[in-house]
Amino acid sequence: MAKVFIEDLQGEFVEEFIWPSVQANAIYEDRYLLGTSVARPCIARRQVQIAQREGAQYVSHGATGKGNDQVRFELTCYALYPEVKIISPWRIPEFFNRFRGRKDLMEYANEHDIPVPVTPKAPWSMDANLMHISYESGILENPKTHAPVDLYLMTKNPEDSPNTPDVLEIEFLKGVPIKVINVVDGKAKDSPLEIFSYLNEIGGKHGVGRIDIVENRFIGMKSRGIYETPGGTILYQAHLDIETFTMDKEVRRIKQGLGITFSELIYNGFWFSPECAFVRDCIARSQENVEGKVQLSVFKGQVYMLGRESPKSLYNEELVSMDVQGDYDPCDASGFIKINAVRLREHHRLQGLSGSKK
Amino acid sequence: MAKVFIEDLQGEFVEEFIWPSVQANAIYEDRYLLGTSVARPCIARRQVQIAQREGAQYVSHGATGKGNDQVRFELTCYALYPEVKIISPWRIPEFFNRFRGRKDLMEYANEHDIPVPVTPKAPWSMDANLMHISYESGILENPKTHAPVDLYLMTKNPEDSPNTPDVLEIEFLKGVPIKVINVVDGKAKDSPLEIFSYLNEIGGKHGVGRIDIVENRFIGMKSRGIYETPGGTILYQAHLDIETFTMDKEVRRIKQGLGITFSELIYNGFWFSPECAFVRDCIARSQENVEGKVQLSVFKGQVYMLGRESPKSLYNEELVSMDVQGDYDPCDASGFIKINAVRLREHHRLQGLSGSKK
Amino acid sequence: MAKVFIEDLQGEFVEEFIWPSVQANAIYEDRYLLGTSVARPCIARRQVQIAQREGAQYVSHGATGKGNDQVRFELTCYALYPEVKIISPWRIPEFFNRFRGRKDLMEYANEHDIPVPVTPKAPWSMDANLMHISYESGILENPKTHAPVDLYLMTKNPEDSPNTPDVLEIEFLKGVPIKVINVVDGKAKDSPLEIFSYLNEIGGKHGVGRIDIVENRFIGMKSRGIYETPGGTILYQAHLDIETFTMDKEVRRIKQGLGITFSELIYNGFWFSPECAFVRDCIARSQENVEGKVQLSVFKGQVYMLGRESPKSLYNEELVSMDVQGDYDPCDASGFIKINAVRLREHHRLQGLSGSKK
Amino acid sequence: MAKVFIEDLQGEFVEEFIWPSVQANAIYEDRYLLGTSVARPCIARRQVQIAQREGAQYVSHGATGKGNDQVRFELTCYALYPEVKIISPWRIPEFFNRFRGRKDLMEYANEHDIPVPVTPKAPWSMDANLMHISYESGILENPKTHAPVDLYLMTKNPEDSPNTPDVLEIEFLKGVPIKVINVVDGKAKDSPLEIFSYLNEIGGKHGVGRIDIVENRFIGMKSRGIYETPGGTILYQAHLDIETFTMDKEVRRIKQGLGITFSELIYNGFWFSPECAFVRDCIARSQENVEGKVQLSVFKGQVYMLGRESPKSLYNEELVSMDVQGDYDPCDASGFIKINAVRLREHHRLQGLSGSKK
Repeated sequence: MAKVFIEDLQGEFVEEFIWPSVQANAIYEDRYLLGTSVARPCIARRQVQIAQREGAQYVSHGATGKGNDQVRFELTCYALYPEVKIISPWRIPEFFNRFRGRKDLMEYANEHDIPVPVTPKAPWSMDANLMHISYESGILENPKTHAPVDLYLMTKNPEDSPNTPDVLEIEFLKGVPIKVINVVDGKAKDSPLEIFSYLNEIGGKHGVGRIDIVENRFIGMKSRGIYETPGGTILYQAHLDIETFTMDKEVRRIKQGLGITFSELIYNGFWFSPECAFVRDCIARSQENVEGKVQLSVFKGQVYMLGRESPKSLYNEELVSMDVQGDYDPCDASGFIKINAVRLREHHRLQGLSGSKK
Repeated sequence: MAKVFIEDLQGEFVEEFIWPSVQANAIYEDRYLLGTSVARPCIARRQVQIAQREGAQYVSHGATGKGNDQVRFELTCYALYPEVKIISPWRIPEFFNRFRGRKDLMEYANEHDIPVPVTPKAPWSMDANLMHISYESGILENPKTHAPVDLYLMTKNPEDSPNTPDVLEIEFLKGVPIKVINVVDGKAKDSPLEIFSYLNEIGGKHGVGRIDIVENRFIGMKSRGIYETPGGTILYQAHLDIETFTMDKEVRRIKQGLGITFSELIYNGFWFSPECAFVRDCIARSQENVEGKVQLSVFKGQVYMLGRESPKSLYNEELVSMDVQGDYDPCDASGFIKINAVRLREHHRLQGLSGSKK
Repeated sequence: MAKVFIEDLQGEFVEEFIWPSVQANAIYEDRYLLGTSVARPCIARRQVQIAQREGAQYVSHGATGKGNDQVRFELTCYALYPEVKIISPWRIPEFFNRFRGRKDLMEYANEHDIPVPVTPKAPWSMDANLMHISYESGILENPKTHAPVDLYLMTKNPEDSPNTPDVLEIEFLKGVPIKVINVVDGKAKDSPLEIFSYLNEIGGKHGVGRIDIVENRFIGMKSRGIYETPGGTILYQAHLDIETFTMDKEVRRIKQGLGITFSELIYNGFWFSPECAFVRDCIARSQENVEGKVQLSVFKGQVYMLGRESPKSLYNEELVSMDVQGDYDPCDASGFIKINAVRLREHHRLQGLSGSKK
Repeated sequence: MAKVFIEDLQGEFVEEFIWPSVQANAIYEDRYLLGTSVARPCIARRQVQIAQREGAQYVSHGATGKGNDQVRFELTCYALYPEVKIISPWRIPEFFNRFRGRKDLMEYANEHDIPVPVTPKAPWSMDANLMHISYESGILENPKTHAPVDLYLMTKNPEDSPNTPDVLEIEFLKGVPIKVINVVDGKAKDSPLEIFSYLNEIGGKHGVGRIDIVENRFIGMKSRGIYETPGGTILYQAHLDIETFTMDKEVRRIKQGLGITFSELIYNGFWFSPECAFVRDCIARSQENVEGKVQLSVFKGQVYMLGRESPKSLYNEELVSMDVQGDYDPCDASGFIKINAVRLREHHRLQGLSGSKK
């Protein structure tokens, strides 16, 4: 007996997966906002919940045997349902010997009238979710080949995007957006899913969030991917801004390291792991005062910060002003510098002794 | 007796200071490309070289007592000329009590017919060098205030920039650019200073490299700065691309951490320190195979990667292909995932025992 | 009007300062258990509490101008009582020009019949608290000079310590000791102060916890210190043991890094800082399951782990056994290794191409 | 046709594997000196060298399917001889279904008169090399069980060790020992293998280097191991001492992080990997000035530092002295502290505003 479950997980995807990633400024290898990676544990969690409820001992997925997604799906399954058995056709010889690659499979689909979105006109594979679309393989496997201009489905080509910016004000509380207002037309959104969808809309309209990268997969090979993440890109920039505005400098340094760790864990499929839960809790702790409003403009593929304000800001206009002294004695800086130089001067002395100047 | 030395340090600034920063992907607090920070040790080194040659026991600078530049200038001086005495008027009470801030000083300048670039029309301070211009203080001290549209001197406003992209090919060797070609018009540059200047020109023309941020100064206060770094922004993106293409994944992870450390050291003024020399050497070691060509387009404030190629690439098109198997057995991935799940399943078991599910 | 407050802070010292350090495995530069460092914020906090209660605007301390303690005392004061003024005689020229060092001060004390513990017989300075004693300066300033055999006050010379070990069982909950039992004589302690004092007693009796190191002070100079930390050394070893037994491997890795950060913060005087509070909270989060009993013997300056047990252990005897298979398929390891080798083989291929073998 | 190769790799083991580990202060999970881990790449490298020379396409090893050694052997093989095929009986079902564990194998050995060192009298497995012996499994699999008193083969029981210490002077150059002198009897060694063997002898005589730990294996399970590493323990302590004495503080901090990474790489079997080569080179760079002599005593299981000296020391007795001022103005410390407090006072201000005191 077969059952099919098609469910709408958009709400939990935004609140439980995207929001923590925003708090973390999660980004893999300095560029990839993890749009696919962060969706996998959300999907697989629901899959095993249903499997457990239905008494199913097996789950399956269609991810290839060379990619990250197989790892992400399966680690989630094993973490939440340790006894589960997983069927992964692309790793079963009977399957992959018959279908040596995507080409064979497309032929099969063609023969059997199964509709597939990859056509000779779009010879690559894509994966779409609320957060982003990724394009890979096919002609994109040659890292030198430029992406076709009509590849992107979620964002407008910046060359064709509006000639006038949109200006948004995003309000954060505890490091997550709680409201977005379009300053130009007054439109406002205040539920997580609506906020994120609206940012996708505005980002998409202005061609924001396209990247073309070669990245390192968990399984040790490099792959080329083209991604578009319109709303995520706006939020990444906006959160960075309000965070640095409100968070203590040294907390920020430590949290930056945790954010990198968190990003690697997400990428590698360890969302449901003790270390990821630990890091997520630490990052959440760091966001207590990350609160306030950021104004930004979105235009021709770019996000520009315009200004920010916060009731929790550690920014002290008087302290930093070049025009008033504030509660600060400039003479202290001399001592600060001199003490910081103690070590450098000692090192110079030693170099003199050892005759090597570097 | 007074002597004045005005020297052209552009060549060494690019080769000895900017190039290592490019190799490091140096960026402070995720956004600032360190255009001012990296220039200070270059200037101060020359200053103390001249002081030593001329037998001067004192050096001086005009940096304020609240900023980072005093630290950067003076740590360089102490590191290279440990016995030097430093005169810093903004930290001498006779001076700063008479001139309580920039306003008093401008009045003084006005009374004494000393020309200054800060005017009522441009009520902020700026600092320019080959790599970037920074704008701070004055009306910009309110972090909510938007930057005036006519602030920027180095980059065109993206709204007014050309409607056609420029496409560049940048060639790297050992992590530094050795050639740039404009694919559109065939223009080519191949000396460090020319390459960097040309990237500034193209980046400036298309409005690339503007940021508006609040950052954490070394001395513990937050400040708002607006920066434009056209050529540096293009190079940052291009180097990230070729580096990830050619560098082993795990070397990259370790090097990423060293790059963050390097960035903090530069920001805090420790260019001439044993730890900075150490990190620089480590990073240089990591760049041995960072070699190849990147194609990118520059348009309306953005840099878009288009493709890359390298004789040293670790990218293996056959290995990664979804259409051929290459030297890879997909079945191995099952074991890989299962072993990675050992720990997760054990953790689940423990949670069951302790009754807490997280 | 002068008032003197002499208070017993031992309880809060153990619970609020030593216990979090135990949780963190706090150790500075791989060897120093931070016995002095961790006491300073405890003392200074009470000092400013009293100052605020009594309406005092000034506080004072006797730490020298070259050491770490001045920083630790004063940062605590400024953090908790930002408006306070601090009098530090060793940094006031009228004072330090009259008393050029400890020698002058001892002469003054001698002339004025002020009893001091540093005598010609013990020509060094010492600082003692519940956790440890440090010995510095005087004849110890020459890093080559061996410490006199009669230096130590808290621990017996191992050559003279008992020829029979004591065997202890220490029970932990959430990463802190809640009970210690002497397995030999059945003696038991279960309040924080009693536990710690008893570990000091046993450690001291067996000469545990002596180190002789050169360390790097916050202010950039190296100094030689000799420390004895009997109870702290036992706890450090015992906590490491139960922690690794109960904590997930990857959580442990991340927590190890946080522990190093925490140690540096303590050493540098930043106990009362936002980053230290942040790291402390993260570490506390990591200790939720650090629970169980450790058996160890203490003998001739050493602590030997004998065994451990825990209701929260992640150790699975069946899984790890070489004699039973458990829930583990050895074939999975082949795939695990093969996938981990993908990257290494690619690297070998590249080296072959580039002709350089390293 | 069968050939047997029995070779003496002791010299290269010390110089190419142990020495870099000494430079790194390599230690896994704060306690394990990696005695087994570091030997595996040395053995496997020779194995594949012979395989390649002899034209063998297969190599084999007897490591179990649950341990780290299989990974260490095989990653080395794949890294150096990517096309090699590996036969690992403990992962072949025909083998491990017949021999379900060590017990079956011992019975088989017994039936076929094959001599094995594991007997009912010593029901555990052991692995010995020049650097250490590890004891695991059998009765030791219960982490609560104390190790039998007669387990250890390389070190004397401290209760039975001499009542008089040996005093050694170890001389380092570029972070590796170049000479050891026994101060008591004048004995001296100056070749790598002799030095290390002599330290093993002295350490063993005094019962130095025994640990009993639970550690986290690469493959995600916890295991209990008992190790003795006499010479390695002495060197670890001695190197830590001379390194901190001669290395700049901030270089040391960065290098400490690299040493932890290096240790994990060794433990996990990645000695021959691009990242390990990279880290090794970085660490070697840090050791340029790690030079000088350390005096230490070895007694009853402990190593005590007594003193150290170096022509490259950054220790400045005059600078640090409490009795002379040296080239240091104590007043500078006031400014240093005040500037470090800027951030803490701002944080206090914010807490006041937000009403939450932490």
